[in-house]
Amino acid sequence: MKPVDNYLDDLKPGDRFVSPSGYTLTESDIIDFALRYDPQPFHIDVNAAKETAFGGLISSGFQTLAIGFRVIYSTGFITTANLGGAGVDELRWLRPVRPGDTLRSTAEIKEVTPSKSKPDRGAVKYVLTVSNQHNEPVLTGTFVIVVKRRREG
Amino acid sequence: MKPVDNYLDDLKPGDRFVSPSGYTLTESDIIDFALRYDPQPFHIDVNAAKETAFGGLISSGFQTLAIGFRVIYSTGFITTANLGGAGVDELRWLRPVRPGDTLRSTAEIKEVTPSKSKPDRGAVKYVLTVSNQHNEPVLTGTFVIVVKRRREG
Repeated sequence: MKPVDNYLDDLKPGDRFVSPSGYTLTESDIIDFALRYDPQPFHIDVNAAKETAFGGLISSGFQTLAIGFRVIYSTGFITTANLGGAGVDELRWLRPVRPGDTLRSTAEIKEVTPSKSKPDRGAVKYVLTVSNQHNEPVLTGTFVIVVKRRREG
Repeated sequence: MKPVDNYLDDLKPGDRFVSPSGYTLTESDIIDFALRYDPQPFHIDVNAAKETAFGGLISSGFQTLAIGFRVIYSTGFITTANLGGAGVDELRWLRPVRPGDTLRSTAEIKEVTPSKSKPDRGAVKYVLTVSNQHNEPVLTGTFVIVVKRRREG
């Protein structure tokens, strides 16, 4: 694993980070999140969810995304050198996530691009893959974050 | 505004939905979300946040996204005919969101595509724009959801 202070200069394409532990979603977690942010029947009502194509309660895709980020953050790959997220492309929800599922994440660096206009920073593009306990991917996405450089200029 | 039961057949490119009310983010909301899902200093520590480029506490981008969805959901545009989200492209965080900011959302339908293999459903592509109380966009993204057809075949 990379050291805790990952500056732009410390990252290169092909670097790979794997979450050291997973996160097990409970029914309560799923319903609490969904009541606030995504109160569709298959996220908040176990009985209504049984009648849907999912056959039962599933997590909000926004919760799956947030947990996927949380567990990759626990690798220490994203540090105080991170100046914030720019965006995400090709975000795909591939499989439902159910109560009791345990999520882990992998990040693979694809591009590291020093800024031309701001010599103190650059962009890091990485692919995040969130998987369940059966090693089936449930979410993938291509993220861009802005990261400080260790040495200016 | 469209009726509550929006099937694929009820939506067409150019349809536009605007959230009837906003959502005001509090400092507590921002910290609570971030402690669980995105505990970077500028999301959880008001003092450390002052020393960052943001100059103060800002919401996690995943929270901004989730709230943006929550307020567009309140239009009734996404109903029980929604079979779930497929993915998001061109998600961009354009401006920081701070305690006290009030978020509203607009969705504009871009494409409605009946499935060739499954005659009971189709894909709806829409652009979500989340704005603050100054009408400045803070997030945009292109979403695809799978929606039931009213009439099969």
